[in-house]
Amino acid sequence: MLSKLYRHNLTLLTDLYQLTMDYGYHHAGLADREAVFHLFYRKNPFGGKYAVAAGLELALDYLQNLRFDVHDIQYLGGLTGADGSALFDETFLNYLQRARFRLDVDAVPEGTLVQPHVPLLRIQGPLWQAQLVETALLNLVNFSTLIATKAHRTVRAAGGSGVLEFGLRRAQGIDGGISASRAAYLGGCDATSNVLAGKLCGIPVRGTHAHAWVMCFDSELESFRAYAAAQPNNCVFLVDTYDTVEGVKNAITVGRELRARGHELNGIRLDSGDLAALSKTARELLDASGFGKTKIIASNDLDEFRIAELRATGAEIAVWGVGTRLATAYDQPALGGVYKLAAIRDEEGAWQDRIKLSENPIKVSNPGILNARRFVDPEGVCRDLIYDEKHLPAAWSGTTPDGRDQWAFFGPGAELLVPVMRDGAVVYDSPKLRDIRAFCLDQATTFGEPAVYLEAGLAARRAALMKAAIGE
Amino acid sequence: MLSKLYRHNLTLLTDLYQLTMDYGYHHAGLADREAVFHLFYRKNPFGGKYAVAAGLELALDYLQNLRFDVHDIQYLGGLTGADGSALFDETFLNYLQRARFRLDVDAVPEGTLVQPHVPLLRIQGPLWQAQLVETALLNLVNFSTLIATKAHRTVRAAGGSGVLEFGLRRAQGIDGGISASRAAYLGGCDATSNVLAGKLCGIPVRGTHAHAWVMCFDSELESFRAYAAAQPNNCVFLVDTYDTVEGVKNAITVGRELRARGHELNGIRLDSGDLAALSKTARELLDASGFGKTKIIASNDLDEFRIAELRATGAEIAVWGVGTRLATAYDQPALGGVYKLAAIRDEEGAWQDRIKLSENPIKVSNPGILNARRFVDPEGVCRDLIYDEKHLPAAWSGTTPDGRDQWAFFGPGAELLVPVMRDGAVVYDSPKLRDIRAFCLDQATTFGEPAVYLEAGLAARRAALMKAAIGE
Repeated sequence: MLSKLYRHNLTLLTDLYQLTMDYGYHHAGLADREAVFHLFYRKNPFGGKYAVAAGLELALDYLQNLRFDVHDIQYLGGLTGADGSALFDETFLNYLQRARFRLDVDAVPEGTLVQPHVPLLRIQGPLWQAQLVETALLNLVNFSTLIATKAHRTVRAAGGSGVLEFGLRRAQGIDGGISASRAAYLGGCDATSNVLAGKLCGIPVRGTHAHAWVMCFDSELESFRAYAAAQPNNCVFLVDTYDTVEGVKNAITVGRELRARGHELNGIRLDSGDLAALSKTARELLDASGFGKTKIIASNDLDEFRIAELRATGAEIAVWGVGTRLATAYDQPALGGVYKLAAIRDEEGAWQDRIKLSENPIKVSNPGILNARRFVDPEGVCRDLIYDEKHLPAAWSGTTPDGRDQWAFFGPGAELLVPVMRDGAVVYDSPKLRDIRAFCLDQATTFGEPAVYLEAGLAARRAALMKAAIGE
Repeated sequence: MLSKLYRHNLTLLTDLYQLTMDYGYHHAGLADREAVFHLFYRKNPFGGKYAVAAGLELALDYLQNLRFDVHDIQYLGGLTGADGSALFDETFLNYLQRARFRLDVDAVPEGTLVQPHVPLLRIQGPLWQAQLVETALLNLVNFSTLIATKAHRTVRAAGGSGVLEFGLRRAQGIDGGISASRAAYLGGCDATSNVLAGKLCGIPVRGTHAHAWVMCFDSELESFRAYAAAQPNNCVFLVDTYDTVEGVKNAITVGRELRARGHELNGIRLDSGDLAALSKTARELLDASGFGKTKIIASNDLDEFRIAELRATGAEIAVWGVGTRLATAYDQPALGGVYKLAAIRDEEGAWQDRIKLSENPIKVSNPGILNARRFVDPEGVCRDLIYDEKHLPAAWSGTTPDGRDQWAFFGPGAELLVPVMRDGAVVYDSPKLRDIRAFCLDQATTFGEPAVYLEAGLAARRAALMKAAIGE
């Protein structure tokens, strides 16, 4: 999607400090040292019990198109430090311009329900390249995962009724809108209002009319008739421009006229007022007039919490139009995903594990070349075991990241990360978005508390590294 | 910026209902009827007293590149309604493909401190064209205005100390990051970490190193030395990877070595812990060692509220690195900007004013072809008077939108909206971004309560329209 959308190559889509560090690595002879970074988050968003992994297809599109073009190099050559001298020398700029990207990437497939600390991406390759891509990968995966999760929660709250994503007008920028529409569909929404996202990503699009349509005519009834004349096969009338109950009656009048012409009134939409009460009144009016199949669609600052409330009061709403609160993840507009160095080869080529310390033990990163294996216990509850591929255990057992529990594992388990890029080339066929969505919705995954464990040997190596670092 | 960034033309960046309404307008013979819409917001964001208008340059870039290409038309031709029949007929698709966009647009210049209800954009032209552009204009102006406002508040809270924007990794998508960087600089930030935004928008970029740099070496001291060897002119050491106070001491050691080579230690950065206490300790250590000019930079979940708190405790912080909470406007991630029809010509060509009703009087839109005039009273407080250009008053007086006050005006006043597009062509030279930023920071604008009035005649016409609509 990105390469269809963006004219500009995105290699400079990074924080400057990635490039100044890369310059430093180059100067220190470390640039081509092989390193491993993991991208993960530490806390499930929205007070929930999981996230939906998303953004991988965008990340691969970004990664496979990396190259510094002549304009990028010119721009970097013009950057200066505090004293006005150039930040980067010619040798380094030539090195960038000649660079071939040769990263290996493993990732959790999009749509998978995931847990904190599990690497969503593992990046392995030349230190300077793995460092450069941190910012863009975080941007792409953080946001898509956030919105796919929000969508999945919203769809779960709707419990089988439909959910449409309408967020473009309040989204954070153009692809804040487009990638939100993609992630929302991936997470389970049925369709989007966003036409460009529909075209670029193959998402079903939906839309009928707004208040402005009604306001262009002398009366609401006249406006519904004019709409029905133009699109008899796509009639959902917005009934709250003047008075909602009168609006429902006008919709029924035009619904009868539509039926006489061989068409059906698909729905009515409520966009203000007491949605629970109005939906019940509207349902009664529609049913009493023979429009039992006409759907009631509701919108107006909805999210999973509000939908659950409305359903609990018996609201007669068949389809939920969700905008701002989904497309911006209003109650938590950022996923705190991070990207941490976990291993680097020394001069002799031996792997040296690395951790990032913190006063908070749960914020200490996990060292090694990590994967995660998902085990399902006899009650159907998933537990994910993070392990180091360099140290495959003879038997699977583990401790939680904060050291609380011991756990014996059930069943053979299955790896969460799969190879997606080798030596800079994509080795993974991203499924079609509709198939990712189906996979996402079909997962019967449930998580106990705690749900993530470190393989016992990994936990021990991590503890030893912490002790050594603090002892320094 | 958009046309430099995007490969795909953005004409389909709209909600489907804009196109189904346009189809209906076309079918009803209303498509080319001249209409006026206003884009405005109803409530200042972040509990504040103003917003900073932004996004106009992006909006003009979008508007002047509108055209339906053959792929767009093919895509639209393939869309179907509930019964599987085509949504749009050939006549309409041909009409779109041949369309020449000929909108007139007036706008508040970027960087202006603005108030609720004042039109930020006024769009006048063929109904179907003015309808089509609603979604993208809201997307662009809502988000840029939100972030410019957040940045301006943050810079005000910093009270003369520097503010750097670091938000790309947690921003909502790629141009969620790029346009956030643009808006943050426009609103007063000094620089960004986002290299691509720096290149595309001419924003100063800043960056040095992260924790990963320190972790690649056997000790922090060794890592600082290696960085100083590579970039002696760009040294800001991140001192909290292991132990902050030890980190400051290591920075001082390398600062002395730098000085011996004729360079200066620009700064140190604190990224965790008690920033107030640590900054005071660090300041003492630096001063005692002859590094009185070395700046202390702080980051870690900062925003205007946290900066004000830290300054109140006497924190010795000279530069604030602000990321997630600025780039996503974390505490209010969407500006509720709306776009409302306000006038349309009838069959005889006479203007008919339009309002959108609501149970809440402040949500009733203002009718007419609106501009706003800013008056400054003898105490220097601004009041903005919204008026209809069709009905210029003989004398300026007004009432607040909710009917609370009468007010006599001082001084000649100045128009807030200026012409920016005529007949589809841009007639406005967007100032350079740095000049917009300087204008934004230089405004001594203060607002009383209330700060927005409707010109008395406009208030009367609005009341009459409300009465007529409710009476229907």
